[in-house]
Amino acid sequence: MTPSPTIAIIGAGAVGGYYGGRLAQHGHDVHFLLRSEYAAWRAQGLRVESIDGNFSLPAQQLHAYDDAQKMPKADLVLVTLKTTENHQLERLIRPILREDSAILTLQNGLGNEQHLADLFGAHRVLGGMAFTCISRQSPGMIRHTDHGHIHLGEFAGSTGRSARAEHIAKLLSESRVQAVAIDDLRVGRWDKQVWNVPFNGLGTLTGATTDRLIATEEGVRLVRAVMREVLEAAGADGVELPADAPEKKIAATRSMGPYRTSTQLDRERGRPMEIEAIFGQPVHTARRAGKFLPLLEMLYVSLKQIGAAGAVQA
Amino acid sequence: MTPSPTIAIIGAGAVGGYYGGRLAQHGHDVHFLLRSEYAAWRAQGLRVESIDGNFSLPAQQLHAYDDAQKMPKADLVLVTLKTTENHQLERLIRPILREDSAILTLQNGLGNEQHLADLFGAHRVLGGMAFTCISRQSPGMIRHTDHGHIHLGEFAGSTGRSARAEHIAKLLSESRVQAVAIDDLRVGRWDKQVWNVPFNGLGTLTGATTDRLIATEEGVRLVRAVMREVLEAAGADGVELPADAPEKKIAATRSMGPYRTSTQLDRERGRPMEIEAIFGQPVHTARRAGKFLPLLEMLYVSLKQIGAAGAVQA
Repeated sequence: MTPSPTIAIIGAGAVGGYYGGRLAQHGHDVHFLLRSEYAAWRAQGLRVESIDGNFSLPAQQLHAYDDAQKMPKADLVLVTLKTTENHQLERLIRPILREDSAILTLQNGLGNEQHLADLFGAHRVLGGMAFTCISRQSPGMIRHTDHGHIHLGEFAGSTGRSARAEHIAKLLSESRVQAVAIDDLRVGRWDKQVWNVPFNGLGTLTGATTDRLIATEEGVRLVRAVMREVLEAAGADGVELPADAPEKKIAATRSMGPYRTSTQLDRERGRPMEIEAIFGQPVHTARRAGKFLPLLEMLYVSLKQIGAAGAVQA
Repeated sequence: MTPSPTIAIIGAGAVGGYYGGRLAQHGHDVHFLLRSEYAAWRAQGLRVESIDGNFSLPAQQLHAYDDAQKMPKADLVLVTLKTTENHQLERLIRPILREDSAILTLQNGLGNEQHLADLFGAHRVLGGMAFTCISRQSPGMIRHTDHGHIHLGEFAGSTGRSARAEHIAKLLSESRVQAVAIDDLRVGRWDKQVWNVPFNGLGTLTGATTDRLIATEEGVRLVRAVMREVLEAAGADGVELPADAPEKKIAATRSMGPYRTSTQLDRERGRPMEIEAIFGQPVHTARRAGKFLPLLEMLYVSLKQIGAAGAVQA
């Protein structure tokens, strides 16, 4: 990748807007593909309130698009589309690829790298986990309230850090986003699932915030049981996570205070929930290995019922 | 029990109003304890639309009360109070008991007979399962749309039909309510739970009707897995249910068409859900035996979260 790459942000919601905005703020050549907020960005630009410092990008300095066909070819494609829209990726990314373009997905859950690899070739694909609290406040206005670091790694030949991953991490780190290249993306992905599956799942089913889910001993036991099933599913995928991962994550959750997960917010706001990426993938992995994991099955099947009733699930 | 017993209906909602109404219609001396509908019954009497024939009881022929202290002593106390109000039973039943009064609970779930036995002596207590679709339409107006039969049996010395149980079954059967005395009340109670726990539980969590819960193969597998855990909990209580009970109940559910369970209707209408009787009791039974049954735990703990959020759970 060149030292000054052309960067495309595919699906500039809160996460894509924030990270892309940071890169643009630091002088990078960033092009944002938008849908519902296109008009607002063109009119008012982007404003970000962030614990790491507020900033704004005036409309005349922003490269905003409502059509991938109009975008320049990109050296680095950053995918921040909601996973419920993954069926659009072929159409949105194909036009901006050149021979050596890299694609980094920061989407939630599992299976996104594989999907991109199937479409565009595994050699292009990297994945990253964004540990952060970022939300859209209004069109063209993003609020970043906590954390923000990214762990990213190669999809293919998954062990060991690549020069390309290190380079992208450096670009981000020099743009006020803490980012590190990791050795094993699959371990990172599954490890994040250990937290997301129980808290996004139980939070969405019950409406309870994270602190309430672990406020009782029976609640902790239930969360732990879900986490252990995620470890089992990971094992079926050849990824061995440390046995004490559940306890560590439960302890970390205690210090977070009340928190509503993204899936929960999606349900409350009548938006599509990321059911397949977060809940479906672990279940399918387990089923392929001949395992019936009862709590993961219940979360997946029940959330699909809810999504279908809301007629908002992709 | 005398051939013409004095009968008290404690908690005359839809179920108590219907069965008590049938007994009164057929000439029995029935006394109804009401709360919110007292004024309506006193003013307009009771009207019942039923697949087994409509009938009404004019206000001047009805014995309706808003205070147990004003009721006559009863030979037979029929308990149809919602289980979320079980803490009131001492106050509501004690005033109408004589030495040999029998108490028959038709309430949902498990543990109601034990609770009554603890309060008033095990020798008095019988339990029954009402298989029926009965709902209140408006104050003083009940609709009975399907089935209606009752299985009833002794709580203490649980095997074998008693003369008392046979006598009560006969009273009901002569009043257009199909009723039979059964050999083993505990088997009957647990058997009903095999259906209620998955359908009331998953239906309440997801909002889906029974037909949708079993519309997919993965849905059937999930329902079956919950049913098997109920069988395990029953086993921990010393009750062995037939291994094919889940398949039989799933098959029977297919022929029911779309159906919303009582717990689900309670949630939708913001009323207290019968969480302890239906979901708590099997979980507590399993825990006492050192078993963690993941799906039952999830249903119980999650429904409590929902109930607590609604601030309507007793």
